[in-house]
Amino acid sequence: MTLTAARTVRVEVSPVYEVHVGADLLRTAGTLVAQENLALIADANVRHLYGHDLVDALTDAGKRVTRVAFTPGEASKDVATYARIVRELARAGLGRDSAVLALGGGVAGDLAGFVAATYLRGVPYYQFPTTLLAMVDSSVGGKTGVDLPEGKNLLGAYWQPRAVLADVLTLRSLPVRELRQGAAEMLKTGLIGDPVLIDFVDNQMVRAVTRQGQLPADDELVDAVARSVAVKSSIVAADEREQGVRSHLNLGHTLGHAVEAASRFALPHGDSVFYGLVFAALLGRRRGLADVVERLVGTVKRLGPEPLPQLGLDDLMPFMARDKKALAGRPRFVLLADVGRPVVVGDVTDDEIRAAWRELEEMMR
Amino acid sequence: MTLTAARTVRVEVSPVYEVHVGADLLRTAGTLVAQENLALIADANVRHLYGHDLVDALTDAGKRVTRVAFTPGEASKDVATYARIVRELARAGLGRDSAVLALGGGVAGDLAGFVAATYLRGVPYYQFPTTLLAMVDSSVGGKTGVDLPEGKNLLGAYWQPRAVLADVLTLRSLPVRELRQGAAEMLKTGLIGDPVLIDFVDNQMVRAVTRQGQLPADDELVDAVARSVAVKSSIVAADEREQGVRSHLNLGHTLGHAVEAASRFALPHGDSVFYGLVFAALLGRRRGLADVVERLVGTVKRLGPEPLPQLGLDDLMPFMARDKKALAGRPRFVLLADVGRPVVVGDVTDDEIRAAWRELEEMMR
Repeated sequence: MTLTAARTVRVEVSPVYEVHVGADLLRTAGTLVAQENLALIADANVRHLYGHDLVDALTDAGKRVTRVAFTPGEASKDVATYARIVRELARAGLGRDSAVLALGGGVAGDLAGFVAATYLRGVPYYQFPTTLLAMVDSSVGGKTGVDLPEGKNLLGAYWQPRAVLADVLTLRSLPVRELRQGAAEMLKTGLIGDPVLIDFVDNQMVRAVTRQGQLPADDELVDAVARSVAVKSSIVAADEREQGVRSHLNLGHTLGHAVEAASRFALPHGDSVFYGLVFAALLGRRRGLADVVERLVGTVKRLGPEPLPQLGLDDLMPFMARDKKALAGRPRFVLLADVGRPVVVGDVTDDEIRAAWRELEEMMR
Repeated sequence: MTLTAARTVRVEVSPVYEVHVGADLLRTAGTLVAQENLALIADANVRHLYGHDLVDALTDAGKRVTRVAFTPGEASKDVATYARIVRELARAGLGRDSAVLALGGGVAGDLAGFVAATYLRGVPYYQFPTTLLAMVDSSVGGKTGVDLPEGKNLLGAYWQPRAVLADVLTLRSLPVRELRQGAAEMLKTGLIGDPVLIDFVDNQMVRAVTRQGQLPADDELVDAVARSVAVKSSIVAADEREQGVRSHLNLGHTLGHAVEAASRFALPHGDSVFYGLVFAALLGRRRGLADVVERLVGTVKRLGPEPLPQLGLDDLMPFMARDKKALAGRPRFVLLADVGRPVVVGDVTDDEIRAAWRELEEMMR
């Protein structure tokens, strides 16, 4: 086995932190984490797969680790699980000089991040993402949160990790469906900031999700994850609290979130974003902006997301009108003036939306 | 009735905000609050006393106000009440362009502040303190939080208000016991930063708490509250996240918190601080620092806190060892090199603590 060089991306937020991407990195966790008393938060599956190695690496470095597990799945991102976890931290006597570690995908990161942001008014936080989606998306940006019965991520805080350690070896256990969700955000990231990622998704990720288990080589994965993190972190650094350019990261998400929510989350996030990306491309082509429709449709079809749900535009419009980018009830869309040049467009008419939606249905059904 | 001039104190945190102190100020709330969609959080008693006037002032200015009530008392500062309130905000459809208003004492401020800090990852927040303690203490500093069964304020966030409006007319309905709790923090504030406040407590506040209802004149109250806010805000501005000089605000709180907690909160916070202030003065005198013992004992006795509980030092030491200023299990104390010159002292011995505790018991029982 050849050694794969790790890559490090600096995220220039306040305070600055680093994302380390590499193969077989989990065993270096002991030198990464500065604090001695740690709470490791992971779901029961991830804990079984990687928890023991990580705990070994930490205890070998003299750390004391309190393990906190939760039931796998989005349903654990709720107030009850959050309250149970913080009470476990309190009973373990963890003080302000301790740190919270998240090991797992987006749910672990969001939940443990909100715990870290609010326990004792905030303690240091480290992320160990084990899904492609978490590595390229949720591990950068500082968004944490839990869901309410009234909606997703309605509670949360901005809380930046002290460091992120993405070990691509953990992707080997990831089901194809989960790999595809990560590919969606990687494709989006490529479209807004790094065309190399578009090719990577089109080639390596298509192979990975169509032939079970045939992941790209470690060094290629490390490069693609690091590139994704670099694009996202440069945008987040320019706009930590989502007041401006950070909305570019929402490419494909106006329709994507609407489809995801209208399907009652039956369609996964990444698959929803695939449809949202094609939709944005269709809107852009109608307006004489970049024409990436054919290329995107080809990539998306080969990646094979779950089918576009049977929804009418009337089901989707209320969600788009309440989208966080909406102004005075009118949806705004991120479109591509060109690959690498996202723009926010506010004057998309209902007719344009209707026409693009019809095209999307024809192409993708 | 002569008009009482309002006073404004700028709090130089990020972002900067202003504390307005005056008489009959609540009716100006409509011009203070920038947002249109508001959630007003108050306990049922305070809502009955001042909620209607405040809502009128806001609706007259064209605001839409969602009223959220909770049961009076510290027991409402829990995760269940917090979760119920954020769900009410979500069901009312309040978005990122809305604001949370806290009307009441410390519980309302801490609870509503934590709601504001975490709802939709943070929305603007305004405080309308109606107790002396909330005006001089919790309305400045940005600390928000809720309790867990394992301890007080174990969950929370730093979240600065956009503005604070302290209307001293609301103090007219305050029971003597509550006025006395505020006087404790005012006395502490005087000791660390403004001797005028020591005299104010010694004269006007002693009269106010010994002869029911005889509050100082409005302009004197406004001056004293504004002075207290000015001292605290200058310290908070220098150390927003409590890493250094902010610990000076902890004068009297090392023993105070221990007595409060060891009494299972039977002794109120301010009364506990009175005993803590005398204890710190006793420790200081033993070390040849400022001798304010006799003066403090006189003031405290005339204010008439509830009796010092029957506690042994063994009951208190564990709490002091876990105090947030403690280093490696050794308590650290804020003492006075002189009035207005607090210092943090780390080498107080168990013998000194024992001797000072004995003196305190002799003097105050």
